Amino acid sequence: VRHPQDQHESIHMRPQIRDAVERLGNHKILEVVRLGAADPNIIPLWYGESDLPTPGFICKAAIDGIGAGETFYPPKRGLPSLRSAIAEHLQYLYGKPIGNDRVTVTSGAINAIMLTAQVIINPEDNVVVVTPAWPNPSAAVSVLGGVVRSVDLDIVDDKYQLDTEKLFAATDSRTRAIFVNSPNNPTGWTIGREQQRQILEFCKRRGLWLLADEVYTRLVQHSQAAPSFLEIAEPDDPLIVVGSFSKSYAMTGWRLGWLIAPAKVGAILDNLVDYNVSGVPLFVQRAGLSALLNGEEFVETMKAYCKHGLEIVSGKLEKLRRVQLVSSDCTFYAYFRVEGQQDTLAFAKRCASEFGVGLAPGVAFGPASEGWLRLCCGRSPLMLAEAMMRLERAILG
Amino acid sequence: VRHPQDQHESIHMRPQIRDAVERLGNHKILEVVRLGAADPNIIPLWYGESDLPTPGFICKAAIDGIGAGETFYPPKRGLPSLRSAIAEHLQYLYGKPIGNDRVTVTSGAINAIMLTAQVIINPEDNVVVVTPAWPNPSAAVSVLGGVVRSVDLDIVDDKYQLDTEKLFAATDSRTRAIFVNSPNNPTGWTIGREQQRQILEFCKRRGLWLLADEVYTRLVQHSQAAPSFLEIAEPDDPLIVVGSFSKSYAMTGWRLGWLIAPAKVGAILDNLVDYNVSGVPLFVQRAGLSALLNGEEFVETMKAYCKHGLEIVSGKLEKLRRVQLVSSDCTFYAYFRVEGQQDTLAFAKRCASEFGVGLAPGVAFGPASEGWLRLCCGRSPLMLAEAMMRLERAILG
Repeated sequence: VRHPQDQHESIHMRPQIRDAVERLGNHKILEVVRLGAADPNIIPLWYGESDLPTPGFICKAAIDGIGAGETFYPPKRGLPSLRSAIAEHLQYLYGKPIGNDRVTVTSGAINAIMLTAQVIINPEDNVVVVTPAWPNPSAAVSVLGGVVRSVDLDIVDDKYQLDTEKLFAATDSRTRAIFVNSPNNPTGWTIGREQQRQILEFCKRRGLWLLADEVYTRLVQHSQAAPSFLEIAEPDDPLIVVGSFSKSYAMTGWRLGWLIAPAKVGAILDNLVDYNVSGVPLFVQRAGLSALLNGEEFVETMKAYCKHGLEIVSGKLEKLRRVQLVSSDCTFYAYFRVEGQQDTLAFAKRCASEFGVGLAPGVAFGPASEGWLRLCCGRSPLMLAEAMMRLERAILG
Repeated sequence: VRHPQDQHESIHMRPQIRDAVERLGNHKILEVVRLGAADPNIIPLWYGESDLPTPGFICKAAIDGIGAGETFYPPKRGLPSLRSAIAEHLQYLYGKPIGNDRVTVTSGAINAIMLTAQVIINPEDNVVVVTPAWPNPSAAVSVLGGVVRSVDLDIVDDKYQLDTEKLFAATDSRTRAIFVNSPNNPTGWTIGREQQRQILEFCKRRGLWLLADEVYTRLVQHSQAAPSFLEIAEPDDPLIVVGSFSKSYAMTGWRLGWLIAPAKVGAILDNLVDYNVSGVPLFVQRAGLSALLNGEEFVETMKAYCKHGLEIVSGKLEKLRRVQLVSSDCTFYAYFRVEGQQDTLAFAKRCASEFGVGLAPGVAFGPASEGWLRLCCGRSPLMLAEAMMRLERAILG
């Protein structure tokens, strides 16, 4: 005979933390960062963060907002003026009108991705992710109990290339979304118009969501902005596009981004924002508004800064015999392979602790990315030059 | 014969938004707010928000942080100095040391609750919630696919009272946590030491999490702070306590709170913060630090302000024959029943649109709360007096 009490004792044995969350393990970039975040001698190129501070005119808008007493609850989906400005900015970049009702202001791009996961991912649903890709979107899917299926980019003639047949073949009846991050973090790969059309059509035909992370759209060399899915989609297409102020406006620490979705999802997002963070501080939104209204010149500065940074980094890497660097149009990261380094988590830790240069290990970007390393190029030329000398020693070491 | 294509067509028919999220329906408070948020003639008592702006010395700390260039990514679990200050503040309030490794800075209390839900709720798990309770914690459980079981407070001798036997009887083998919000939003009920002990012991014995929302701990009349579970728990007990700067320091719009958990959950929270919002802006954390270091006098001001507000509100409500108001020690809300008003969502909408006073409908706080209304008392005496005249007309009308 089992007494109720016995049952309860057996309950006591259950793990108190979800398997889905335990299994996530350590954030592989944070695992390296934790080693050396407090060490001022390490040159930190592990995060996707420029060392340029936020421009003064953007800071001033926030300070003015605080001074004006904007310390009360914000509208959940964002200030109407900021939502309009985001819509107008996207129209300026892509020449296609976006209704304000499609815009939600978020606590950075990752919050937009987490909100999306909450809207679409049931347990055991899967999302097909073009990899390499930064780890957080996949983690958001896992937190909701979903499954990530990676489809790796190929390297063809020293260029990254997506095989859409392979991508489509990875979907099945439990697929809820395809995730495309272009320009891609970490590889710099940028999707072209024809493949965008194929993927959007596929998603529409199959009733899948297309989740497009276009955070790096401005940091490309040969155009004002990378091709966006927004340019080819209709307002009600199953498309969610994520953007951010972090990279283009040197605003990583402000936690400010946006999400463009079909208007019919708006009411649900309004609620979900409330259940996650209850909105973004008004004065932070004022900073974003100023960035969009007055920031084009600064974006050009940032583009030139990253381009120069990439030139310094790739100039050195290309001279090192054991290094493979694949070229791309996007300038924010260098993503490279070091021959013989198959455990890049260990190598990145050694680079930080022994050589004083902080890199992100490839294993953070997908299972097939082991052997590669990511380095952020949006840093001062002097720092990058010093970092490359240290890295050379680590590689030759 | 079913062709693969047919299967795909059937996939096309699947709903594109999760049932779990559709079922949440509208946030019942937001549903009233949306009616009149833009109308300056409505006195807004629907949110839990004082009309006092954030004190200048707190704002100044944020402005100084921005001026000092604190515009880069924050440490995920918060500035070490703020984590220490939160630990010291709790020790000051409760006389028991809290290790810094138990403290995580969050984007407000709701973000702390959402993070907790992500750590502990598997689909179909349930959480037993003491109700009435503000809707967001239950919604967070639902977003993770969990099930909410309400256990209502009883009214005995004009006081709210929790029946712990009823509470424990509501748990079963799929229960993962008990959620207690005390001082309670909306009723003002405050749990006593003996029941805290019973619940903590029960949770330890059964291997359940005890999630305690203690956001209103300062806004009580007869003590410096309400009894906290932190006073009776050991560091490794399965206790998570949520706090916030919003109410005590008039910082609702800053989105800043904290979570106290066993140290062993720290690494998981570090990752999850990154996957949700990637931390709280440094300058917002500076504001919080200043609040804790210099804010005791302001907390006393806020306490007096709310107490005065509650006196104005209850003075009027007690004179209205059709109104039932249950007394409590907490001063931030008045929660009352209007005889004959069984559809308080409709009544709250009418109060807003026809009478110019914004209330939160009882149905937002749990299924058994229909018939009740919540009113925030942390507002200026003149506004409250005017609001009460309007409400009287609405009730008598």
